[in-house]
Amino acid sequence: MSEFVLKPLGELVRSREPGCGLPGEVFSRQDVFETDIDIFFHKHWIMVGVTADVPEPGDVSVVDIGKASVIIVRDDDENVRAYRNVCRHRGARLKEAGKSTVGMLVCPYHQWTYDLDGSLRHAKHMGKDFDATCRNLRPVHLKVVGTHVFVCFADEPPADIAKLEETMAPRFAPYELQNTKIAFESEIIEDGNWKLVMENNRECYHCEAGHPELTMSFIPESTSSSADGMDEEGIKALDAYNKLNAETQANWESEGWLCSAVEELSGDVATHFRTERLMIGGHGESQTIDTKVACQKLLGNLTRRDLGDTHMWTHNSWTHVMSDHAMISYIIPLTPEKTLCRTKWLVHADAVEGVDYDVTKLTEVWVATNAQDASLVAINHRGAQDPGYIPGPYSPSTENYVDQFVGWYAGRLKAHGI
Amino acid sequence: MSEFVLKPLGELVRSREPGCGLPGEVFSRQDVFETDIDIFFHKHWIMVGVTADVPEPGDVSVVDIGKASVIIVRDDDENVRAYRNVCRHRGARLKEAGKSTVGMLVCPYHQWTYDLDGSLRHAKHMGKDFDATCRNLRPVHLKVVGTHVFVCFADEPPADIAKLEETMAPRFAPYELQNTKIAFESEIIEDGNWKLVMENNRECYHCEAGHPELTMSFIPESTSSSADGMDEEGIKALDAYNKLNAETQANWESEGWLCSAVEELSGDVATHFRTERLMIGGHGESQTIDTKVACQKLLGNLTRRDLGDTHMWTHNSWTHVMSDHAMISYIIPLTPEKTLCRTKWLVHADAVEGVDYDVTKLTEVWVATNAQDASLVAINHRGAQDPGYIPGPYSPSTENYVDQFVGWYAGRLKAHGI
Amino acid sequence: MSEFVLKPLGELVRSREPGCGLPGEVFSRQDVFETDIDIFFHKHWIMVGVTADVPEPGDVSVVDIGKASVIIVRDDDENVRAYRNVCRHRGARLKEAGKSTVGMLVCPYHQWTYDLDGSLRHAKHMGKDFDATCRNLRPVHLKVVGTHVFVCFADEPPADIAKLEETMAPRFAPYELQNTKIAFESEIIEDGNWKLVMENNRECYHCEAGHPELTMSFIPESTSSSADGMDEEGIKALDAYNKLNAETQANWESEGWLCSAVEELSGDVATHFRTERLMIGGHGESQTIDTKVACQKLLGNLTRRDLGDTHMWTHNSWTHVMSDHAMISYIIPLTPEKTLCRTKWLVHADAVEGVDYDVTKLTEVWVATNAQDASLVAINHRGAQDPGYIPGPYSPSTENYVDQFVGWYAGRLKAHGI
Repeated sequence: MSEFVLKPLGELVRSREPGCGLPGEVFSRQDVFETDIDIFFHKHWIMVGVTADVPEPGDVSVVDIGKASVIIVRDDDENVRAYRNVCRHRGARLKEAGKSTVGMLVCPYHQWTYDLDGSLRHAKHMGKDFDATCRNLRPVHLKVVGTHVFVCFADEPPADIAKLEETMAPRFAPYELQNTKIAFESEIIEDGNWKLVMENNRECYHCEAGHPELTMSFIPESTSSSADGMDEEGIKALDAYNKLNAETQANWESEGWLCSAVEELSGDVATHFRTERLMIGGHGESQTIDTKVACQKLLGNLTRRDLGDTHMWTHNSWTHVMSDHAMISYIIPLTPEKTLCRTKWLVHADAVEGVDYDVTKLTEVWVATNAQDASLVAINHRGAQDPGYIPGPYSPSTENYVDQFVGWYAGRLKAHGI
Repeated sequence: MSEFVLKPLGELVRSREPGCGLPGEVFSRQDVFETDIDIFFHKHWIMVGVTADVPEPGDVSVVDIGKASVIIVRDDDENVRAYRNVCRHRGARLKEAGKSTVGMLVCPYHQWTYDLDGSLRHAKHMGKDFDATCRNLRPVHLKVVGTHVFVCFADEPPADIAKLEETMAPRFAPYELQNTKIAFESEIIEDGNWKLVMENNRECYHCEAGHPELTMSFIPESTSSSADGMDEEGIKALDAYNKLNAETQANWESEGWLCSAVEELSGDVATHFRTERLMIGGHGESQTIDTKVACQKLLGNLTRRDLGDTHMWTHNSWTHVMSDHAMISYIIPLTPEKTLCRTKWLVHADAVEGVDYDVTKLTEVWVATNAQDASLVAINHRGAQDPGYIPGPYSPSTENYVDQFVGWYAGRLKAHGI
Repeated sequence: MSEFVLKPLGELVRSREPGCGLPGEVFSRQDVFETDIDIFFHKHWIMVGVTADVPEPGDVSVVDIGKASVIIVRDDDENVRAYRNVCRHRGARLKEAGKSTVGMLVCPYHQWTYDLDGSLRHAKHMGKDFDATCRNLRPVHLKVVGTHVFVCFADEPPADIAKLEETMAPRFAPYELQNTKIAFESEIIEDGNWKLVMENNRECYHCEAGHPELTMSFIPESTSSSADGMDEEGIKALDAYNKLNAETQANWESEGWLCSAVEELSGDVATHFRTERLMIGGHGESQTIDTKVACQKLLGNLTRRDLGDTHMWTHNSWTHVMSDHAMISYIIPLTPEKTLCRTKWLVHADAVEGVDYDVTKLTEVWVATNAQDASLVAINHRGAQDPGYIPGPYSPSTENYVDQFVGWYAGRLKAHGI
């Protein structure tokens, strides 16, 4: 039965034709899934939440990533900390996934009790030779950028998170994202491999037919890299876009708003990200159906509404920050063919629902977009499993970032000896 | 843990005692399942539908077989064609499983658009170097026999489908099976391996106690091969059957109705089939409770009602064609322990429900029989997984065709180097 | 992808730090699960029921254990017998799991018919060379101790069941456990590996916070092995317990009630068990909320109510026999992470519900306790799968029997060459 000897992942990935998709089995094999979790979700920095998940001391947010689980907690000094969600005695989960508020972290099994700084305070019946100081909770590396909570399970987390931080922190600063609240959050489970979810997020070729709500505000050209392959009409539209974009960015820059694209997408960098201040269509204010702000109370102390969309891509998240709200999505693979997508809509901490904003208006674009993407990812996943699938070429103009994502994936595998 | 090294499938199959069943693990192992799908469902001709699934140009029927999916479509010239259900761009499924009607085949992801002849007509943004002619839909080999749609995913499909075609086409011809409609169709998922579903179909030893409805019309002796092992009463019944059958067949033959048994069941042939015109019990007309026709408008231009049952077995289907209707079942393995069984009841295209036929009367025998078989297959599957299971002997008189099916399975594995 | 080569089970188990838990993957790996089923559930004696499951001749109780299934039947001579639940023809299950009453055992597939002594009586169509005597049902080794039905699927079952029998039979004798009926039975499926279910059962460290109902009658000190690690209060409590226990046991012994602890827990013995007559808290009568008997009609011909709790542990069961009732639980692994726990409450065969006993009062302690344990096992299982889990130390005073269970597990693997 030699036909069922699995090809090594690295070989499979490196066998792809340049500019074409990955072979289908990298989206379905259990061993590839486990490697992906290990490398891309346990050894890289991943986005797992926002500071508004734990607004007060004692607030806990537990996030499961594969078989791992992290407790994110705000301690009594207002610092956000992260620990392995595993009791140091017999390994019981300290807290269920989700949010809660605690005084101490008490294991439900035998009541081992930990301070919010992770130190073991009480453990009955452990004998005179027991050294509690060896049994503190295991910390998880944590970095807050803007409001984004990044964690890394590796012993030595990639140092280049610094580049993301130094790029994004000044761009997020005027929005005061730590002074926000979660107006709404959603969770959907997509029937597709996480890499196909990310591929879907990295192009807007599918937007025209697939996302009628999003394309009210989102300009597909903003993620197109070249005119190659466009028809005359397309080239004209791209030229017009480029001209208007240059003007708009010049205007923003003149007021000090950081605009330029920064990309760290090569397979040599561990911490994959991209940012740019993107134009918004229509009235140019926000990702809403009418392209105007959905929250009358702007973020931070902003007064200008047409600040565009400061987007941030990482390998497991996408963020759009507008003057009135931020929309932050991150994904977590559940199985080779199931991926959790969590989305949070943030508004100013003092904004009042029903007065400053209406939840439906705030969320309807991305609620619809996420659902549409989920069904596209599902048909992509199923078809890519077909033995009759031969990966086709990416569009050179509209799918360049998909190609780069796949290239990054290949590079990181190689960097980890796969 | 040497006890968990899996025995190679070929070795397992060839280790069976002559005349006895297969070892239980060939029904449950995932690797065996994948080999089975690859060899028996992707490299052999399989039955996947009837022409009445796609009666008009633009009609589409999508059938999933394992991870593969085939689009069966009637083109503008009334030809039935088959394609891989995979977009040549990023592999998305073009159509969901089931039936629909289309003008062109448009991929829901990025709107790549294919003609019904499979050629790629539109693909935006693909650049000046893009050669659309290399991106037509991949055809799947297709052969229509009577009304039966056979497909084969192999590059070089077995040539001996010709033998099935030359045998069956003249037998089906008088029934004009392409001039039929689907009066009813059913789908059940059986809790058993596909080979046990087929074993169950290849003997009527279980009919007496298991199928009270079917045995009104179906004569168990018609699938018994010898009197070996029968008691006196059984031998007498078989003798009586043989005598009556010889007379009946002589009568049919004198009118030109082809009757004789044709069997291609050896492991040397790729395209496994059997046919014979079988007597029907009671009034001898149809597989109904009262053994009379269920549809007053006979198939084709037939006037004679007692034409018996022209049956056709293949390795994934069974068909019974009577003067008034045809009952066609085919199976598709879903997992090692789940098998889809689809059944279609065909009547004359001009027959009118409620006037010419009543759906309940038409279908009740095989609806009941399929359900009964499903529960027998389920207990067979579970028991055959028991570590205490030792395959027992097939009945030499009533289970000979089961033994031949298993022999064919073994032979085909060998022919594919397993 | 060398990181995904699985470590051999034996190596994993022997790598555990002395006094600490097993590495997490022994609770989740499919191959370990299959080894566990093979060794601990098919090659050792396991508890699978009570004689009251089959009170009358022809009564059948079918129990599935992994892919194996056993028919327990009381024959016409009142003997309890056990057979593989597999037809000797094509392997069909003879009976569904659960209880029923039969005259003969008739296979639903082809009506092969077996006597209650397992001999094949009828099999149609099998030919003149067929030897029915070779096709009797395959017996399963069976041993009844008290009321407990132990079976072993091995060809040569461990002989040391004799030690369990000679120890337990005289202790159970006064209770006349075969003269009981099942007042209630429950089934729960715990979301945890079977070894974690057993670990949970082998310590009462978690009782104080976890089992408010059970600790009304159950004295945690009764399963503590030493004062090591206890605080002053704990030591005082243990001393008081030991003193009272010595007095109580002396009183019982003076009346001839067997009390002393017998432990066969070492990895050198196949048949793992422990027994002792344990004190009951409060009024000292029974494991009820008010610690008094729940059934006014005592077991056997007993008149004394405060006979303590004669407990019996095996590697897949726990039993508590009090003067008025017995509570018997056994477990069967379903998957690496799911374990069935069946519990039966036995009372005197002549006790009348609503007169002698109230089912709620009889069962509420262990119904609550089982549910509480199920949720503790679930959080233990999930946490122990976390890549951040490092097995911690067992409490030397309160988790000594957990350590012994793990040691026995390791020893038995080694004894089977793992």
